[in-house]
Amino acid sequence: MSKYWNSTVKQLQPYVPGEQPKDMKYIKLNTNESPYPPSPRVLEAISEGNNGTLRLYPDPNTDNLRNVVAEYYDIDKDEVFVGNGSDEVLAFSFMTFFSPEKKVLFPDITYSFYKVYAKLLNLDTEIIPLDEEFNIPIEKLCKNSGGVVLANPNAPTSKEVSIDDIKRILESNRDNVVIVDEAYIDFGGASVVNLIKDYDNLLVVQTLSKSRALAGLRVGFALGSKELIEGLNRLKNSINSYTIDRIAIVGAIAAFEDEAYFKELTSKIINTREETIVKLRDIGFKVMDSKANFVFVSHKKMKAEEIFKELRKKGILVRYFNEPRINNFLRITIGTDEEMKTLIEELKNILN
Amino acid sequence: MSKYWNSTVKQLQPYVPGEQPKDMKYIKLNTNESPYPPSPRVLEAISEGNNGTLRLYPDPNTDNLRNVVAEYYDIDKDEVFVGNGSDEVLAFSFMTFFSPEKKVLFPDITYSFYKVYAKLLNLDTEIIPLDEEFNIPIEKLCKNSGGVVLANPNAPTSKEVSIDDIKRILESNRDNVVIVDEAYIDFGGASVVNLIKDYDNLLVVQTLSKSRALAGLRVGFALGSKELIEGLNRLKNSINSYTIDRIAIVGAIAAFEDEAYFKELTSKIINTREETIVKLRDIGFKVMDSKANFVFVSHKKMKAEEIFKELRKKGILVRYFNEPRINNFLRITIGTDEEMKTLIEELKNILN
Repeated sequence: MSKYWNSTVKQLQPYVPGEQPKDMKYIKLNTNESPYPPSPRVLEAISEGNNGTLRLYPDPNTDNLRNVVAEYYDIDKDEVFVGNGSDEVLAFSFMTFFSPEKKVLFPDITYSFYKVYAKLLNLDTEIIPLDEEFNIPIEKLCKNSGGVVLANPNAPTSKEVSIDDIKRILESNRDNVVIVDEAYIDFGGASVVNLIKDYDNLLVVQTLSKSRALAGLRVGFALGSKELIEGLNRLKNSINSYTIDRIAIVGAIAAFEDEAYFKELTSKIINTREETIVKLRDIGFKVMDSKANFVFVSHKKMKAEEIFKELRKKGILVRYFNEPRINNFLRITIGTDEEMKTLIEELKNILN
Repeated sequence: MSKYWNSTVKQLQPYVPGEQPKDMKYIKLNTNESPYPPSPRVLEAISEGNNGTLRLYPDPNTDNLRNVVAEYYDIDKDEVFVGNGSDEVLAFSFMTFFSPEKKVLFPDITYSFYKVYAKLLNLDTEIIPLDEEFNIPIEKLCKNSGGVVLANPNAPTSKEVSIDDIKRILESNRDNVVIVDEAYIDFGGASVVNLIKDYDNLLVVQTLSKSRALAGLRVGFALGSKELIEGLNRLKNSINSYTIDRIAIVGAIAAFEDEAYFKELTSKIINTREETIVKLRDIGFKVMDSKANFVFVSHKKMKAEEIFKELRKKGILVRYFNEPRINNFLRITIGTDEEMKTLIEELKNILN
């Protein structure tokens, strides 16, 4: 604590990302990265962009990238906002659409950055408890308050919310923005992107970090009505005109242009996930049905924290959250088939 | 205006960066970029980093880069904060150290993003008018208020503040943070980096966009006491854990490692600046003494706006600010010798 920090910073509880240890080589199943590299076309595009033009500022409006994303989703460029990873996009969205005088609603078990943003902005929140099976009680989000934030599929539970349920939430929040965080949508979930034409209060947030294997490049985006996107641009342009560097812009464009690679990569991960779920259940794990690139599991015989520690000793990192209700669960990212085979073997050793 | 924007966003007056037109090839002297490319070692490092590891998140603490910057300035890693360009670093600094209940002081003529940040954060400000020669009346910043922001050299005036004057400001602001924005310090100004050991209220902000020719890569940094840097990290980690991508990290490290190139590049620009100042004065311009990579000029015979428009027609972009007190001035970035020769020729044509 320092006398120079303002009162907001003094009370912050910053987000803690999954560890990125440097002491040895791990099988990294703890931060939901892709086990496969990005498209070769991304690397080519970066290679082409790696030249003297780096002396020049990037396009502050990232028009070329927004055009490509808009075309991909069959919407307008003015319905696309691009940011430095979906975390920045989410933070800017909270800053643009939510106010301290009205409560923002989100589930108790969800992406833990939401409550960090709320603290940062001194927002009042209403935390909606998931039911015993970690389903979201939709009716509790169907009231006109100060805004809703929903991860779909939810993290770390991996569970999906149906489009009809999201419509219900949107209908009953006509005066508020509903943020649907689709960071994991490309692994089998049903996106609500098409609803932005019907609901000017819907903001869909996605990222290139997971399904496009570009966590290292920092590009996320939001899709929504022109007025929502204009609000985000006003906010961004009051903080930093150029949040995406020249390299990230060309890399992200190339990622959207290689649809075949994207489909192949996400299919592989979905297949591995389904096989992994069967194998985990075979050795006694309770595993939620997953629409994400991770699974959320617990085991009757051994505490999650213990399994986490034992796996770490074996060189396998998974994510353990020491938080109420989920402190006996592990979030395990889907790796390659080889990595998951090693995981299952080590789990068998640990559990025996 | 949208009903979905909160009251802060509704009253924002976002920063407008210099134009980046795509209609034709210009001699670009409007955004203070380097006319020379970044070090070849930067391009090599990016080339090496352009591989499958882009699937992985960057180091959220940017330890390697912070170590290199710390070594360069002979300070500790914990005295270095890295951000997505100095604009983000400045925004985060305003968010961390300033409070609505106390006035923040900065000059009337200075980097126009400061007042944008103040609006964003609903900060009360006391705007200190520069004197007729655009010098900063130091004594007016020497009072214990809510913080001070000072660009040194100042933009767009290009004028330097002495280290002794900054010491006076620091002494009389022992309870507040004094931000010294040294975006242009490498072009002949005297940095106050060495003072961070003596003043725990001093935050020095620098950028790789100008003197290291990397505007396109988005890396800036702040140097200050550990407690100031810890505050910035708390704030950053409540918005976005990873603001610098893997490519920008390795590129920035390489830029700091090629000191010879850096010295050569800044010397060339300083030489060109001094020659340009003489030539501009020869053709009747009033030119401020400059310690930056730009000059601030006016002409008795022709209005700045008119010169700006005429230069644009000739394919030369300079910066014109249609703002009180400086609306008869132009800010001209120092380009290559060749570019400045063309500028002088075209100015002669326009003025005849």
